[in-house]
Amino acid sequence: MRNLLVIGIGAGDPDYVTIQAVKALNRVDVFFVLDKGEAKHDLVALRQEILERHVERPYRVVHGRDPERDVRSGPYAEAVEDWRRRRADVCERMVLDELADGECGAFLVWGDPSLYDSTLGIVEDIVTRGNVELDYEVVPGISSVSALAARHRTVLNRVGGAFQVTTGRRVSEGLPEDVDDVAVMLDVRPMTRLPAQGVDVYWGAYVGTPDEVLVAGPLEQVAARIDAVREEARARKGWIMDTYLLRRHVDGDARG
Amino acid sequence: MRNLLVIGIGAGDPDYVTIQAVKALNRVDVFFVLDKGEAKHDLVALRQEILERHVERPYRVVHGRDPERDVRSGPYAEAVEDWRRRRADVCERMVLDELADGECGAFLVWGDPSLYDSTLGIVEDIVTRGNVELDYEVVPGISSVSALAARHRTVLNRVGGAFQVTTGRRVSEGLPEDVDDVAVMLDVRPMTRLPAQGVDVYWGAYVGTPDEVLVAGPLEQVAARIDAVREEARARKGWIMDTYLLRRHVDGDARG
Repeated sequence: MRNLLVIGIGAGDPDYVTIQAVKALNRVDVFFVLDKGEAKHDLVALRQEILERHVERPYRVVHGRDPERDVRSGPYAEAVEDWRRRRADVCERMVLDELADGECGAFLVWGDPSLYDSTLGIVEDIVTRGNVELDYEVVPGISSVSALAARHRTVLNRVGGAFQVTTGRRVSEGLPEDVDDVAVMLDVRPMTRLPAQGVDVYWGAYVGTPDEVLVAGPLEQVAARIDAVREEARARKGWIMDTYLLRRHVDGDARG
Repeated sequence: MRNLLVIGIGAGDPDYVTIQAVKALNRVDVFFVLDKGEAKHDLVALRQEILERHVERPYRVVHGRDPERDVRSGPYAEAVEDWRRRRADVCERMVLDELADGECGAFLVWGDPSLYDSTLGIVEDIVTRGNVELDYEVVPGISSVSALAARHRTVLNRVGGAFQVTTGRRVSEGLPEDVDDVAVMLDVRPMTRLPAQGVDVYWGAYVGTPDEVLVAGPLEQVAARIDAVREEARARKGWIMDTYLLRRHVDGDARG
């Protein structure tokens, strides 16, 4: 039996790491890393900093090559599913070759492993295939949504109201009918495309890091500015990690 | 100028506390506590444990009496709003009387201050009233939703899908049309009332604590069992803190 930990390390600030995650990091013999090329060099450095600061025992780091995602192949969900399968191939190989029986391996996940991350799906795939006997645990982390709300000092839901997390793809037509507060992940398209009337936005990039940028205000007034800031930042750093909250104006606007 | 910290301490396990929260706890001169009576004695003990374990400097604890919520007064949102205002009165009084200029006060919040918690709204109220000059910061925490997902080793959203957090009140008629994954907070009514067909449930009470109970399965099959477990636990401990995730079956069920 091999043990695997999927550890959420929080979204940006190395101090988002929990005590539980620190304890988990110190049980690990082998950290598995899927290399995505050099684009997100800062994230590699941040992860390295977390290990150096918190791990007090010897460990190995095993790198696998993250397969390319074929962006032109079929519908979105199927393309992601195919990609996930190929990533599971790579991860299964790493576990079989590099993790001895009785050892503990780990994947570190930015933010929270439960939100818009594929690691748990990959681990489930590996377990289902049955080529390796794996017991695994999940350590929750501070999600980019929680971090964004904290930095804007705002809440995600209104009294008695619902709150939704969705994708840029889905929010293009506007906020859902029955929800007034929506966090958007994975959006690469301009804010100016969104129906803006009666909506406030709380946007943040590189939240919790020294590069953090925050913009908030009525979407009509700040959408163009956010697009400009985003393009400038992406060009300067070579990558961007951003999220935003959309909030519909409601009469008698009570939060809590 | 007085400083105020709203610190998320995570939902249940004292090890959910982040390094950032530990650092914040160690800046605090005065911890403000709204006493809700003795019902949730375990939670008081847990909060005390977190302070004793992590705070390395002298501090004061100031208790205020949490006003009763008048459950019979008017519509839900207005009743909560009125309650919030009376809580703000109590908190403003505590800050004015017990926090000196230049000192740092704090409210500790279970889970994440951004999700279904009224503390940030209270602090905004106090700032808006203008009777005391306050600068405040928010420290995010592990929400009960993240904790629940981690303990069930599952994700909150499917590939490209949306994820919603809502209340027991809102979910009584069933899952929203456009969302297949819904976390439910603050539900006191029986699970057996929910439309169950084609829906899985991941339920947990006292998640992350020694009293943790988890039940998962098709809602049709496990709803009655969850209701029984919940009533038994509530009767035994005098209070309950539970959350659940509902997940609609979808063809080609891909997660990640």
